Amino acid sequence: MARSASRCPNRHLCSTSEQIAALFDRQERNRTGLFWAEGCRSFFSAIDNGWPIQCVAYCPQLLRSRTTYERLTASTIPRLRLSPVQFATLSRRSEPDGIGIVCPQRWEPLIDQHPKPGDVWVALDSVRTPGNLGTILRTVAAVGARGVMLIGGETDPYESAAIRASMGALFATKLIRTSARALEGWKVRRHVTFVGASPNAPDDYRDSRLKTPLVLMMGSERSGLRERQTALCDHLVRLPMTDRVDSLNLATATSVLLYSVQERVVK
Amino acid sequence: MARSASRCPNRHLCSTSEQIAALFDRQERNRTGLFWAEGCRSFFSAIDNGWPIQCVAYCPQLLRSRTTYERLTASTIPRLRLSPVQFATLSRRSEPDGIGIVCPQRWEPLIDQHPKPGDVWVALDSVRTPGNLGTILRTVAAVGARGVMLIGGETDPYESAAIRASMGALFATKLIRTSARALEGWKVRRHVTFVGASPNAPDDYRDSRLKTPLVLMMGSERSGLRERQTALCDHLVRLPMTDRVDSLNLATATSVLLYSVQERVVK
Repeated sequence: MARSASRCPNRHLCSTSEQIAALFDRQERNRTGLFWAEGCRSFFSAIDNGWPIQCVAYCPQLLRSRTTYERLTASTIPRLRLSPVQFATLSRRSEPDGIGIVCPQRWEPLIDQHPKPGDVWVALDSVRTPGNLGTILRTVAAVGARGVMLIGGETDPYESAAIRASMGALFATKLIRTSARALEGWKVRRHVTFVGASPNAPDDYRDSRLKTPLVLMMGSERSGLRERQTALCDHLVRLPMTDRVDSLNLATATSVLLYSVQERVVK
Repeated sequence: MARSASRCPNRHLCSTSEQIAALFDRQERNRTGLFWAEGCRSFFSAIDNGWPIQCVAYCPQLLRSRTTYERLTASTIPRLRLSPVQFATLSRRSEPDGIGIVCPQRWEPLIDQHPKPGDVWVALDSVRTPGNLGTILRTVAAVGARGVMLIGGETDPYESAAIRASMGALFATKLIRTSARALEGWKVRRHVTFVGASPNAPDDYRDSRLKTPLVLMMGSERSGLRERQTALCDHLVRLPMTDRVDSLNLATATSVLLYSVQERVVK
C-alpha cells in the first residue's frame, strides 16, 4: 500500500479519530447530522448509491483488499490515515478490515413520497433493537420496497449495530422519520393501503390479496402495534404459529410478510 | 418473597455461582453436558416442555414476577439462592429478571428420526452466528417443524446468545448434531426430500411444489452451502432479490423459506 494520504480538509468533521469516535454517541450524531459506518461493504455501498461521503478513514496496515484501496485512491473523497491503534478505537469488529466512512444522514420527508402502484413501504412503530432494524433494511432492499418509515425515535438506523446488520442496505434504502398523525394525513391524501401485523388479527396473511401502494405496519418487539397505529390499518393480518412460541422475531416476521406481499399484491 | 431456599443438592453441578458461570465456556459445557439459560421465559419453557432442570438459581431481590416465584417454590427442582452481586455475574442482560436454570443438553440421534408425511427439518451447514441460530430455532418452533440438524459444530445452540434469541424455543425444538455423510445414509433409507437454498439456483422458491418429509438445507452466513451438502439436495431454490443487496440474513432467508414450505408442501 502507498504511504501518502491527503489530509481531511473538513477538520471539524473528521480530522481526528476521536472526532469520529464521538459519532458512536447518538447526541453527537444528532448534533452533527453525521454517522460513521465501518467496513469495505459500507464504503462500496455508499459509493454505488451516490452517498455524499464526507471522509474516509483507513488504516493501510489493516486494509488488505486491493480493490478497496484502488477505489479509495482513485476517488476524490477526503481521506484520513490512521494507525492500527487509532483504527481499533473506531472498530466494533473482531477482525477490522481497515476502512470506514463518515457520511451525512439522509432523511426523506414524508411529503415527498409520491406512491405509485406496486410501491411498498415498511412502517416500524417504536422498533427497539438496532440489529432488527438493520436486518429489516436488508430485506426491504432485497425485495425492492421503497423505504422504511420510523414512527417513534427509539432506535437510530445510523447506530453501528443497525448499520452492520443492514450489510450495506442502509445506503440503498430510503428512511423517513414520521409520526402517526403525519401518516394519517399522508395516507388519506395519497390513497395508500395500510396493512398491520397483529397476533390477534382474524385474517391469516396468506388469505389476503393486497392492494398497492401499500404500507406494511409492524409493532415493537415487546408490545406490538399501539392503538393509534392499529387504527390506521385497513387490514390486520397474522402469521400463523404453533403454541410452542409466543411470537416471532420482529425482523423475521417483517421479512416473511414482505416476501409474501411481493406475491400477493394487486397493482 | 420468602427467604428460605433449599440448597442445591447437586453440589458438583451448581453449588456456586462460579460453577454456573463456568458454563459460559464452551469447553466446560461440552465436559459437563450442561448449560445455563437465563430468564423467566427459559424457566417456563423448560418446565412446559418437560426438560429435566438440574437446578434453578434465583435472586429474590431481582425476581419481581410473582407467578415465577410461585411456580419456583411449588416445584421440587433444587434451588440455589443468590445475592444480586452473584446473580449479576451470571447475567448477560441490562435488566436481569433474577432467575436462570442449569439443564442437561439434549441431542437427538439422527437414527431415531423417523420421518412422516408433513415433517420438515432445517439442516444448517456451519452456521456461525449464535443470534441467527437462536432466531432460526424460534421460527422452527413457530411453524411446527420437527427440529434442527447442525452439520459442523461451529456454533453451539447452548450458548447464551443463541438461547436468548430463541426466546424459549430452544426447549421446544429437537436438536440433532450430524455430518453430511450420516445425512446421506439417513436420506436414502428414509426417503426424505432435501431442498437447498442457493442464490444461483435456477428455480424461484415460489415455483416449487415440495414433497415431504423434507429437509430444508441452509449454508453458512458467509459462504453458503458447501459442495457436499449441495450434492445432497434434490432441489435447489433461490429467494429472488434486487441487486441492491448481495444476500439476505441467514435467519431471515430460513424463515421466509420455512413459511413458504408450509404453504407449498405436498404430503
